[in-house]
Amino acid sequence: MKLEEIGNQPCSIARALSEVGDGWSLMLVRDAFYGRTRFSDFVTYSGAQKTIVSDRLKRLVADGIFERVEYEQHPIRHEYRLTDKGADLAHVMLALSAWGDRWLDNGKGAPIRITHTECAHDAGPRITCGHCAGELDAGNLRAEPGPGFPANGPAIFGQHS
Amino acid sequence: MKLEEIGNQPCSIARALSEVGDGWSLMLVRDAFYGRTRFSDFVTYSGAQKTIVSDRLKRLVADGIFERVEYEQHPIRHEYRLTDKGADLAHVMLALSAWGDRWLDNGKGAPIRITHTECAHDAGPRITCGHCAGELDAGNLRAEPGPGFPANGPAIFGQHS
Repeated sequence: MKLEEIGNQPCSIARALSEVGDGWSLMLVRDAFYGRTRFSDFVTYSGAQKTIVSDRLKRLVADGIFERVEYEQHPIRHEYRLTDKGADLAHVMLALSAWGDRWLDNGKGAPIRITHTECAHDAGPRITCGHCAGELDAGNLRAEPGPGFPANGPAIFGQHS
Repeated sequence: MKLEEIGNQPCSIARALSEVGDGWSLMLVRDAFYGRTRFSDFVTYSGAQKTIVSDRLKRLVADGIFERVEYEQHPIRHEYRLTDKGADLAHVMLALSAWGDRWLDNGKGAPIRITHTECAHDAGPRITCGHCAGELDAGNLRAEPGPGFPANGPAIFGQHS
């Protein structure tokens, strides 16, 4: 199976990864969060080869995560901006960033500080329950079929098949 | 540049993606969150080919995200369990899941319900500022060099290079 095909699974993680699971795609989304909009900058800062950047941007535009916008008419030039759907990946970026800060900082502290501009302090994101506001972690979550799970869906949960 | 090499960048998102940016790796982490521990189950539920599952599990063990544990002695059999570092990817999983629920549910509702076991309600994760508890989103975050950013680090921020 190709990675793009896992979106057929009745699981929002699989579906999300079918669109942004390729690491280079998430690097381009990162670059966009860091203010980049131009093809040449995506190449410079992601570290990906031009052909990869070109391919991934095309797919991300097709999936409605980036939009390709003309910003100059003579000559015609385009830039790439996150759509609402793309900007909504902010929480994925924050979660990856916080995990990297905790486990991969080589003891030197966070390489990048993310500030919450409304209070001007470190965002230091907390992931909390929408109902009781308690902290969520691997130890207090349970996954089970939801309203959109098909009647004959695969047994993706459970300890052993 | 290969995806594994982006971990050289002074950015926790890039470092995180250098270890888990490959979509299949995140699918295996997902399967572990859904209770899977055995090689054959990872193959069945991720949708990846055996050779890919084998390769990714090796890398994830090398990076300390999974540990390979003997669970039977005659014959010797191993299973794969998330380490503390791996379990700490719960927030990345929640963020991907919530994004997929919002943008890729085909109008049918969330395929999987994630319950916060401490209050027994939908986890419906909120990502809030560790300082003021305000909601974090793409519109109220600013990234800038942090304590671990090298003096001669690359100009990864900014609108145009």
